[in-house]
Amino acid sequence: MVSDLEKRILEYIEANYRKFINILSDLIGIETVSAWKDSSVMKKGAEAVATLLKDIGFRAEIRSYGGHPIVLGELGKGPKSILIYNHYDVQPPDPLELWSTRPFELVEKDGKLYGRGVADNKGNIAARLGAIEALAPYLDELGLKIKYIIEGEEEIGSPTLHKAVEDLKQWLKADGGFWETGYVDRRDRLRIPLGFKGMVYIEVILRGASRDVHSGLAPLIPNPVWRLAKFLTLLKDPNGRILVPWIYEDIEHLGSEAEELLKELDIEELEELKKELGIREFAEGLSGFKALRKLHLEPSLNVSGLYAGYTGKGSKTIVPSLAGVKIDIRLVPGQKPNKIIDRFKKFLKENGLGDSEIIIHGAYPSGYTKPSEKIVRASVIAGEKVYENKPVLIPLSPGSGPLYLFTNYVGTPMTGAGVGYYDSKVHAPNENIRVVDFVKSMKHVALTILEFAKIAKVKLESTDTSLSSPSL
Amino acid sequence: MVSDLEKRILEYIEANYRKFINILSDLIGIETVSAWKDSSVMKKGAEAVATLLKDIGFRAEIRSYGGHPIVLGELGKGPKSILIYNHYDVQPPDPLELWSTRPFELVEKDGKLYGRGVADNKGNIAARLGAIEALAPYLDELGLKIKYIIEGEEEIGSPTLHKAVEDLKQWLKADGGFWETGYVDRRDRLRIPLGFKGMVYIEVILRGASRDVHSGLAPLIPNPVWRLAKFLTLLKDPNGRILVPWIYEDIEHLGSEAEELLKELDIEELEELKKELGIREFAEGLSGFKALRKLHLEPSLNVSGLYAGYTGKGSKTIVPSLAGVKIDIRLVPGQKPNKIIDRFKKFLKENGLGDSEIIIHGAYPSGYTKPSEKIVRASVIAGEKVYENKPVLIPLSPGSGPLYLFTNYVGTPMTGAGVGYYDSKVHAPNENIRVVDFVKSMKHVALTILEFAKIAKVKLESTDTSLSSPSL
Repeated sequence: MVSDLEKRILEYIEANYRKFINILSDLIGIETVSAWKDSSVMKKGAEAVATLLKDIGFRAEIRSYGGHPIVLGELGKGPKSILIYNHYDVQPPDPLELWSTRPFELVEKDGKLYGRGVADNKGNIAARLGAIEALAPYLDELGLKIKYIIEGEEEIGSPTLHKAVEDLKQWLKADGGFWETGYVDRRDRLRIPLGFKGMVYIEVILRGASRDVHSGLAPLIPNPVWRLAKFLTLLKDPNGRILVPWIYEDIEHLGSEAEELLKELDIEELEELKKELGIREFAEGLSGFKALRKLHLEPSLNVSGLYAGYTGKGSKTIVPSLAGVKIDIRLVPGQKPNKIIDRFKKFLKENGLGDSEIIIHGAYPSGYTKPSEKIVRASVIAGEKVYENKPVLIPLSPGSGPLYLFTNYVGTPMTGAGVGYYDSKVHAPNENIRVVDFVKSMKHVALTILEFAKIAKVKLESTDTSLSSPSL
Repeated sequence: MVSDLEKRILEYIEANYRKFINILSDLIGIETVSAWKDSSVMKKGAEAVATLLKDIGFRAEIRSYGGHPIVLGELGKGPKSILIYNHYDVQPPDPLELWSTRPFELVEKDGKLYGRGVADNKGNIAARLGAIEALAPYLDELGLKIKYIIEGEEEIGSPTLHKAVEDLKQWLKADGGFWETGYVDRRDRLRIPLGFKGMVYIEVILRGASRDVHSGLAPLIPNPVWRLAKFLTLLKDPNGRILVPWIYEDIEHLGSEAEELLKELDIEELEELKKELGIREFAEGLSGFKALRKLHLEPSLNVSGLYAGYTGKGSKTIVPSLAGVKIDIRLVPGQKPNKIIDRFKKFLKENGLGDSEIIIHGAYPSGYTKPSEKIVRASVIAGEKVYENKPVLIPLSPGSGPLYLFTNYVGTPMTGAGVGYYDSKVHAPNENIRVVDFVKSMKHVALTILEFAKIAKVKLESTDTSLSSPSL
């Protein structure tokens, strides 16, 4: 059942999607690695995004809240509004030697697009711009306003986004919205995350001597590596089991609705994930529904980085003056980042590491939208049309993002959409998307917005009679 | 009691030492970091050294035994011969940000010379060339031949030197020799190491997934960091106590002579070392003679490097696909490198890490010379004259070097001499020497050779009457 308008939109997208691959290519070329803190590159990235918004007709502006700039855009008059969130920053590209293309150059090969950020998250910016360009002539008719917020610090834990959201709270209120991502699974179904875990990212640095020392002196000079190793064994056992009970405090269970959604997930995908990653067994020997539950509904604790002394090729003989570890803890609904940080610091102290230096790289709670929200229902209907399969709703994604600011603090329910697929190698070398998914995502976003206009209008007609165009 | 010849030599050195600082400057400018495996730079370094030898009158040649080139030189006719060993390679300069000068540029400031290799070991090459230039006109009269061997792989564990030594065994036989180093202590006494610990340098790499994975998947993906951390805690406790008994197997005690020499060491220097390095307490709470004994006469085990995942600035959220550790084990006389490697591998297996990848970066036993050897006695007499203090003999240096090839395999007794001092920051940023020590070392080497000619001649006259010049 495709309406005329839908048909026109889909045809427009088919005819014009190459333009948005070119736009994506331009975006990939700007090395917006937020972790590198190169403000001139980040500014260039923000300006490029703002220009793209303006080209489609958005009123756009760039703001800064003390960190990398945020881009805001508004198109259409409403009265109903849709909010879109994305980020133009990307993860660092290393290890560079494992890329088969240059990470900051979009390469198209065998129907795939390669480059840092194609999936996470620049590809989504480009695809959504395509969807909106297709919809733009009809927005007023639909009674819709699109509000776009694109930040530049998601990959470093969105340290200043909360300031922006506090400042823009009224503007960010919308009837529905799109969160940054969504992936196509091995059965050609779109996976829509309705929630994300929160995040606490802590770096712990232990110090020994005031400088690296020739390791002939090893019998005398305290080497912080040994204390760090001992500490790590207190957090997790070699099989990956978390040993600290405070990681599980304050969990607010999402209820049977969430568990039911999990049961619809494809357990065979776990086996394929194993194969793809060359893993014989998952951590803790997990499998089946137990693995899915742990992945989606429980907090996690991970070492993202570990370093001491000489880490280059070959050998160097020193007693390192410092040893550091980067730990990311992901939180589920109910858990408070600050409480976890306090617990972590207390645990360090209790284990004789009260002298360590602590850097908090990010801290935010979990955020989520209920599957019964209109924008979610709209995205499911649109998903069935575009992907020819019912989308899979993920009650809580194992990944993290500052979704809570929008869903829980501002109160805008948000659904997902995305250009990636199960093998997109997000955050890793050879990040890639399939061209076919890029086009489908453009269509899915456009049709979701059309469906939302339909669903929301029922309500609209009874509460707001000012809308001039009664039918599409 | 300074002879005429001594006086002439010392005056020559005073008048000409600047030339050898310029030579040192040229050598520092060549970035001969053996760990970087840049063969063109290493070749350039070897050629520069060979040219310097030729300029003084040496017959010199460059050979390769499959690794970085070795420079050989010979000057004079004998019949007695002196062998000198040095190395033109250096440690990597990182962490670069902690240098206050450019590491590969000799900078003179406040009576000190800064640069990677000024102490270890290029400064010694330059100083010894100065000493030999001063002596060159008198070598035949003294009945001496100088043989010089300068390798380019000491800082990576001298992986091909043993081949060179096997090939050159006859040529390397000498009546006495100089090992690479020696340092002035806080009491202006030259420390002469008569032995060095052996070395086993092992890198262990544990693997998880076939690539780094987004850390949202942390509950499922095995992270090799946890297994590595557990393994490290089995090697040493947080205080630095070695937990594996096989590290202490096969120790051949050096006897009371060695312990007596240790007792002459300055225990207060340990306190000054603590202060200099900002350390409250040594590892295991060691102090006094016990600390000296552990440092000099026992094997050691150290982590020189530790790495996994993202080690740059800021944050990146991944489950690392590999975790690695660089471990250096130093051996004392009697211990066999291959046996220690076998033990290490067995220990890995016993603890469930039989699947780890192992790279052996270096393996050689301890080597030493007895304090009663003529060349040692000569260097002590020369040291008293130049430093105005009796040198301190170290029976076994806590550092390592392939001395055993010369002392134990070839059978050439070797003493020490050196341009460094207690704060030379060897293997660390801001490596430096004092100009005054550079000049003293030139004099010490020259006078040691003169003293050796005197001592050795007593024997010579009774066994070899061919020597023409009866007195100096």
